[in-house]
Amino acid sequence: GPLKEVYFFPTEVACTERLFTPDSPFPCPCPLPHNVNTSFTRLLGHILSASSSLDLCVFAFTNLDLSRAVLALHTRGIPIRILTDMEYTLITGSQIGVIRRAGICVRCDSGAVHMHHKFAVVDGRRLITGSLNWTLTAIQSNKENILVTEEPDLVLPFITEFQRLWDVNDPA
Amino acid sequence: GPLKEVYFFPTEVACTERLFTPDSPFPCPCPLPHNVNTSFTRLLGHILSASSSLDLCVFAFTNLDLSRAVLALHTRGIPIRILTDMEYTLITGSQIGVIRRAGICVRCDSGAVHMHHKFAVVDGRRLITGSLNWTLTAIQSNKENILVTEEPDLVLPFITEFQRLWDVNDPA
Ligand SMILES: [Zn+2]
Ligand SMILES: [Zn+2]
Repeated sequence: GPLKEVYFFPTEVACTERLFTPDSPFPCPCPLPHNVNTSFTRLLGHILSASSSLDLCVFAFTNLDLSRAVLALHTRGIPIRILTDMEYTLITGSQIGVIRRAGICVRCDSGAVHMHHKFAVVDGRRLITGSLNWTLTAIQSNKENILVTEEPDLVLPFITEFQRLWDVNDPA
Repeated sequence: GPLKEVYFFPTEVACTERLFTPDSPFPCPCPLPHNVNTSFTRLLGHILSASSSLDLCVFAFTNLDLSRAVLALHTRGIPIRILTDMEYTLITGSQIGVIRRAGICVRCDSGAVHMHHKFAVVDGRRLITGSLNWTLTAIQSNKENILVTEEPDLVLPFITEFQRLWDVNDPA
């Protein structure tokens, strides 16, 4: 059947360099464990697997590895749309400014209420959703979950909701 | 295939009385809309559908309807286990005290880090998971999602993680 995976956090800390530079002939010199699959490297791998689009709807986004992944996809020319919470783009360490300055399309939900979603749709087909915010605390400290699936009955409602929120928050 | 449903919030406000007293011969006199299915009435319906067990892992629990549902299941003799975040049991309006005094088994995650999950497993078979905390703000105001499924590949990892966290937080 279609892809169905569940990952729990916190995750062990492991080096993520290889995911970004798979063709490098040099071993990474950093002191972290290498060649280790963790919940986080799998999440990063799913994001980096995008080949045609990434739609991302997150409340908070401070994680540097996830920011690097989004910027890498942008460099590859993959269309990216990010929907985030207005209030939280201003917190310390928010990657939203960096991402926007790179030329990626970001819309902020400016409603009086929080945009509390944390989901991504990769290539219009693969849903990543759960309790996990895209922050360092969430990944290394909190007890969290994500679920990754290509089940159409689960993915399609999120695609529709993303488009609805995207249209509602059109600044034009 | 197995049950797969997705609901988005905020939801319209509607009366939930009928879910608790399905056999009442009297119409509810309250001013809210009646006979309306919303994301929230569907969530409540899934919880109230429990016939053999309810395992609940939530960060924050202040919603009165959800508390009433849990207490109703307890009255019916259905075994309930609740795992929650220590720090958040003390917030204003937390239902954890009421639930514990009713004799329901509650364990608090006392780790230094937040137990940020928000999932439930009904009858060891039906998973309810997503971004939604069991609070009034989450349900009536925030933009949130829940996913309800009986796909074993998605449900079983949550059952295993619940049992693991339950055992880790055994106060005995
Ligand atoms: Zn390294
Ligand atoms: Zn009523």
